[in-house]
Amino acid sequence: MSLKDIQAQVDEWTSQFTPQYWKQHEILAQMQEELGEIGRILNRVYGPKPPKEGETINELGNELSDLLFAIACMANREGIDLDKEWEKTNEKKFKRDSKRFEKKE
Amino acid sequence: MSLKDIQAQVDEWTSQFTPQYWKQHEILAQMQEELGEIGRILNRVYGPKPPKEGETINELGNELSDLLFAIACMANREGIDLDKEWEKTNEKKFKRDSKRFEKKE
Amino acid sequence: MSLKDIQAQVDEWTSQFTPQYWKQHEILAQMQEELGEIGRILNRVYGPKPPKEGETINELGNELSDLLFAIACMANREGIDLDKEWEKTNEKKFKRDSKRFEKKE
Amino acid sequence: MSLKDIQAQVDEWTSQFTPQYWKQHEILAQMQEELGEIGRILNRVYGPKPPKEGETINELGNELSDLLFAIACMANREGIDLDKEWEKTNEKKFKRDSKRFEKKE
Repeated sequence: MSLKDIQAQVDEWTSQFTPQYWKQHEILAQMQEELGEIGRILNRVYGPKPPKEGETINELGNELSDLLFAIACMANREGIDLDKEWEKTNEKKFKRDSKRFEKKE
Repeated sequence: MSLKDIQAQVDEWTSQFTPQYWKQHEILAQMQEELGEIGRILNRVYGPKPPKEGETINELGNELSDLLFAIACMANREGIDLDKEWEKTNEKKFKRDSKRFEKKE
Repeated sequence: MSLKDIQAQVDEWTSQFTPQYWKQHEILAQMQEELGEIGRILNRVYGPKPPKEGETINELGNELSDLLFAIACMANREGIDLDKEWEKTNEKKFKRDSKRFEKKE
Repeated sequence: MSLKDIQAQVDEWTSQFTPQYWKQHEILAQMQEELGEIGRILNRVYGPKPPKEGETINELGNELSDLLFAIACMANREGIDLDKEWEKTNEKKFKRDSKRFEKKE
């Protein structure tokens, strides 16, 4: 699955609604909600909180994917090409950030 | 660029460091930082805050991509296959969520 | 209710547990969970999402207060005096930030 | 400093601007920005990231207080009495949540 495909699938799915995309701040609020879910899961699986009854604790992948969906919505709304942005991120990491952390011996 | 490729690139880049991946909560904190950057940009571009001098306001794609990087780190750390998760998300959207919002006439 | 009282109440409540306070990153994850709840409420009350059945939408005050609780936990854990910090924030606002936004005529 | 005083100070400060309060989603975005700052600090002080030159790492109290400011803005905007909400939170904690975590022997 490519970023281009993901953006196209999201565009197809959202095209059935009106308005097609939420406002930017509304998408951000949705992202905050997804990140909150990730926090909830981490604090139960790797942290101090006991799971509540009936709560599944193994849904991290699900939430990461929902967050990816929200990223694609924001990108589509703003005309951002995630492939191009990823290329820049990747380049920056390999160049700028290659000396930021402790290297293996 | 596919999700599989993205996960592989992230794995390659992080493989030069030790430990290769941060703790889950540390990756979450990084995600919170990226989301905060997105909030900062939205409040300047589409919201009430004036840009500070020297601050570029046109970096939304950059921040979305950095967030994607953090998602790939978390997925790699936890052995999550984002392609599979995306497939499930996409299916869920087209089935469960197709009646949640107002349809076009 | 003063900030000093709030910090003391939180200290009293948490003193029954061991460890008394979660790790810093765990408190941060909890903060994100509360913020996600606020996002969920706003997207239902002032945004595009319809309320789910059985979901109360009028719990914003509750979530703000839970977030305040988490702030007090973090402050207590780190030996931060919120009264003093607030004083500094308030001073900064009245001095530095008094020219940042559009004034009333 | 009481919550009532804090809400009053925030109301006084914001009263010089028009509009007096940002939209709810804009305040939420601001909260995420503050939370992101807290994440940044924690990942430098208690986590894997080295401090950048010129970056002060000792500003946690400052960020917690800024977050408190945003909470007071949202509460004021929505007509929420934080004292009352805190009372309910405190009661809930002492009743409902007193058995959720491991007690001291």
